[in-house]
Amino acid sequence: MAKEWIELAAAVLAAASAVGKKESEGPLGELFDLCDKSDRFGMNTWEAAEGEMQRMAFNTALAKAKLHDQDLGGLFAGDLLNQCVGSAYGLLDFNVPYFGLYGACSTCAEGLMLAATFVSCGAFDRAAAVTSSHYCAAERQYRTPIEYGGQRPPTAQWTVTGAGAFILGAPEAGKRQAVIRRAMPGIVRERGINDANNMGAAMAPAAEDTLVRFFSATNTTPDDYDLIVTGDLGFEGGELLCELLRTDGYRMGKNYTDCGRLIYRRIEQDVHCGGSGCGCSAVVLASYLLPKFASGELSRILFLSTGAMMSPDSIKQGQNIPAVAHLLEICGE
Amino acid sequence: MAKEWIELAAAVLAAASAVGKKESEGPLGELFDLCDKSDRFGMNTWEAAEGEMQRMAFNTALAKAKLHDQDLGGLFAGDLLNQCVGSAYGLLDFNVPYFGLYGACSTCAEGLMLAATFVSCGAFDRAAAVTSSHYCAAERQYRTPIEYGGQRPPTAQWTVTGAGAFILGAPEAGKRQAVIRRAMPGIVRERGINDANNMGAAMAPAAEDTLVRFFSATNTTPDDYDLIVTGDLGFEGGELLCELLRTDGYRMGKNYTDCGRLIYRRIEQDVHCGGSGCGCSAVVLASYLLPKFASGELSRILFLSTGAMMSPDSIKQGQNIPAVAHLLEICGE
Repeated sequence: MAKEWIELAAAVLAAASAVGKKESEGPLGELFDLCDKSDRFGMNTWEAAEGEMQRMAFNTALAKAKLHDQDLGGLFAGDLLNQCVGSAYGLLDFNVPYFGLYGACSTCAEGLMLAATFVSCGAFDRAAAVTSSHYCAAERQYRTPIEYGGQRPPTAQWTVTGAGAFILGAPEAGKRQAVIRRAMPGIVRERGINDANNMGAAMAPAAEDTLVRFFSATNTTPDDYDLIVTGDLGFEGGELLCELLRTDGYRMGKNYTDCGRLIYRRIEQDVHCGGSGCGCSAVVLASYLLPKFASGELSRILFLSTGAMMSPDSIKQGQNIPAVAHLLEICGE
Repeated sequence: MAKEWIELAAAVLAAASAVGKKESEGPLGELFDLCDKSDRFGMNTWEAAEGEMQRMAFNTALAKAKLHDQDLGGLFAGDLLNQCVGSAYGLLDFNVPYFGLYGACSTCAEGLMLAATFVSCGAFDRAAAVTSSHYCAAERQYRTPIEYGGQRPPTAQWTVTGAGAFILGAPEAGKRQAVIRRAMPGIVRERGINDANNMGAAMAPAAEDTLVRFFSATNTTPDDYDLIVTGDLGFEGGELLCELLRTDGYRMGKNYTDCGRLIYRRIEQDVHCGGSGCGCSAVVLASYLLPKFASGELSRILFLSTGAMMSPDSIKQGQNIPAVAHLLEICGE
């Protein structure tokens, strides 16, 4: 049998976020580093706007860490766009080795896990993870252009317009910081959901699988963590996850939440089942969760980004939705 | 400054390939493990056929290594399809943690580099890299469906229908094997090419950049290697690479070749500038290059997969083509 989890020691040296209008008007609006209320970030296309968000978020994270691009050994990045052009074009200006990822909305945790592994084993002194999504680019790629005005079913989620960037390095002695200590990569699971407007249901079994394997391997329970936070299961998927875990013998308490629930006001902002997208867990982690480690409010959490790995074509071809959930244990030290 | 290259010690325990009709009729045809002359692999869509090729190649590699899926710590996989559905669906049956990648045609070297790093640092005892492309799926996604019968310009390359799978682990004492010893991840480069039918020209500067950085950092020259083999620069891009390197003071000799040149008979098979696609470098490495380490014919090579990171949308939006080239030094030991 293979090892069950990965032991790591990688501190988050800096993190930054850039978001659009709707995110800036949500409950976490004040916390994000950068915002463009036009959602365009000075660009002519939604796809280029998404790339520009990544560029700005990464630049801001570098500035916060007082580092230059050449100080990094590698950059792990991805997004939802076909051929991940948000990352490929957005990060083109930087002189850093580039590892392109596609994990759908799980990309944030996937990138952090890879960057943390490269840092922990000494392959790189420092590495970065960057990821993004853009509502208007995602809608026209996955569903219909926003001009079409399509009706959204109650289980639909709202793709976050946002980019998050993280710079990881060795933990520094004598400084309170967030350190990635353990990771469990996800196994792709598919349990018969083929409704692209109910991604929470498609992703919940993947999150369940990763969590159960992690609790079992580490001999811990949900109560051992200050917070267990999933990426974008939203309201529907989050409830399903708690139900699924109950059947496995794990009771999720008030310490469970989801980035897709945190980022918007559900009713007032009319987001149905909450936020989603590669940017969702990235900006919530960068600007809401990580500062709580510095302040001492959090000292041990499980952070899982969840991704639904279908394409518009695979849905039209009648295939179900495979999903994956990557887990990180982050500790305040 | 960040470290320039990654020191590794990961042996290729097994490799396998699955290809279509045209590849089976090329000069390497006899070497591939599996072939379906219908290019369909028993599936109803080209996309599902691509996934099935990955499944078969990975299964064959596992069998050759006498391992089960649970013996692996992780699987690094990707392809050219939107949202990388070839990998997500094709590898769904396996009970292995999944890291989705998007590096266009550089994905083979990217996956091998990540798998080799995880194995070398002990995060995983064994890991796999799997990648694929399918001519018919790629044509209808990037250009036009094959039924359209579009004319191909002379600089066009032919997307390889093929999947390659590799299983990496610690080198075994007393056995002649191919070992990945050093790696240099690529930096994304873009030099003004915006013709999606001339990807060799778009990718050559990325290969140049990685090679020059590697030669300079390791104080080696092209003459120090039995072979320097790029992924799919083809005839046009390969010549450009040699010219570019000449201006940098490096002379590529007869030890330079390209997987896209090796896989087809240029004139008889009417492939214009040669093969391309994530599957190109993967199947050539798996079935043509790696066996030469076991036989002692090769003892030290540089293997670079090159990727053009545009999307059909980014081309229509008038953007140039960014490219990346990841390098592996593979030694017979």
